[in-house]
Amino acid sequence: MPIIEMHFLEGRSLEDKARVAEKVTAAVVEALDCSPSTVRILITEHKHGEFYVAGKAGRASDQAAGNMPGQ
Amino acid sequence: MPIIEMHFLEGRSLEDKARVAEKVTAAVVEALDCSPSTVRILITEHKHGEFYVAGKAGRASDQAAGNMPGQ
Amino acid sequence: MPIIEMHFLEGRSLEDKARVAEKVTAAVVEALDCSPSTVRILITEHKHGEFYVAGKAGRASDQAAGNMPGQ
Amino acid sequence: MPIIEMHFLEGRSLEDKARVAEKVTAAVVEALDCSPSTVRILITEHKHGEFYVAGKAGRASDQAAGNMPGQ
Amino acid sequence: MPIIEMHFLEGRSLEDKARVAEKVTAAVVEALDCSPSTVRILITEHKHGEFYVAGKAGRASDQAAGNMPGQ
Amino acid sequence: MPIIEMHFLEGRSLEDKARVAEKVTAAVVEALDCSPSTVRILITEHKHGEFYVAGKAGRASDQAAGNMPGQ
Repeated sequence: MPIIEMHFLEGRSLEDKARVAEKVTAAVVEALDCSPSTVRILITEHKHGEFYVAGKAGRASDQAAGNMPGQ
Repeated sequence: MPIIEMHFLEGRSLEDKARVAEKVTAAVVEALDCSPSTVRILITEHKHGEFYVAGKAGRASDQAAGNMPGQ
Repeated sequence: MPIIEMHFLEGRSLEDKARVAEKVTAAVVEALDCSPSTVRILITEHKHGEFYVAGKAGRASDQAAGNMPGQ
Repeated sequence: MPIIEMHFLEGRSLEDKARVAEKVTAAVVEALDCSPSTVRILITEHKHGEFYVAGKAGRASDQAAGNMPGQ
Repeated sequence: MPIIEMHFLEGRSLEDKARVAEKVTAAVVEALDCSPSTVRILITEHKHGEFYVAGKAGRASDQAAGNMPGQ
Repeated sequence: MPIIEMHFLEGRSLEDKARVAEKVTAAVVEALDCSPSTVRILITEHKHGEFYVAGKAGRASDQAAGNMPGQ
């Protein structure tokens, strides 16, 4: 019955979201030995100016590179 | 002082949201014997592709019927 | 498929929690015309010192009376 | 490593959001004596009809004045 | 920079939690092509009486079998 | 009417929590020009094994130093 909330910056495609939901569901099912039907995932995208690290706004272009401020 | 966060799929009218907030507030007040003024409700709507059951995206048309995948 | 997170101060009995979950589920089903089986509720209790209004900690004894600071 | 989620009504400027993120980060760093780089802030704005006090919808115009219903 | 909140019923071992965190992190990194260092996971366990499906409390023994009420 | 959820690792004193709540409330009031009585703060502490960065569990001793894995 896991419920999973994912937060990330705006800019991901529908395919990205579907893929991450599918892979995270599989990871949870394998790790916790539960039925897939019990796994619910909620995604919330945050616009630029709604995600901060060390008080500085993150940008979508930082995501893949991992070069957010303070990382 | 209950704080309640509600998540559901996009597509509800302003009237639906007002009605669910009113009814949930009344339910909390009755069940917990608290003052209405202490009850706060936050609603977050999730777009298609932001809510998954068993790794499959839910659709607004599934909501009333209850025929989400995995249910 | 609503997912509902409820936060309140520690001190409620198991019966209180079951009653609020039952009543809130019924309220959501009636207001949103969805199947009960799609409604999930998560309760998080917060200890004294983990809930603040106007920067002052709330107390369980304030809950019924509605006399939290700032209300 | 604090993670902070802030919810407020839609209508704040990008400057407002940046300022609140900067000030809250500084407050957390000072109070908890942690490194700024460990502080992450997520902001979620709620549209009119997605925030309720005492079962009544809050309005952006209530925010500064503090005259939300039930306050 | 994904932030992931996981909710499940009390009763998982420290090893279960570490394993699900490791596997979910790997799933997110692969699906979103981001750096592992940007992925943060918060787990919240809910006691019996703090998780409800269709208004009925879920039990830890239901988790593996997937036979929660309403599923 | 801001609602703020703070998550951090277990191990903070009641004084730490009260101080961070007081300072964050003041920061929000100043930055958003709202009434203190509209600001609510919820704190959730996470036990060891319930907070992960890059798939590795954070420890309370990492908090002040900011030397979490991946930072």
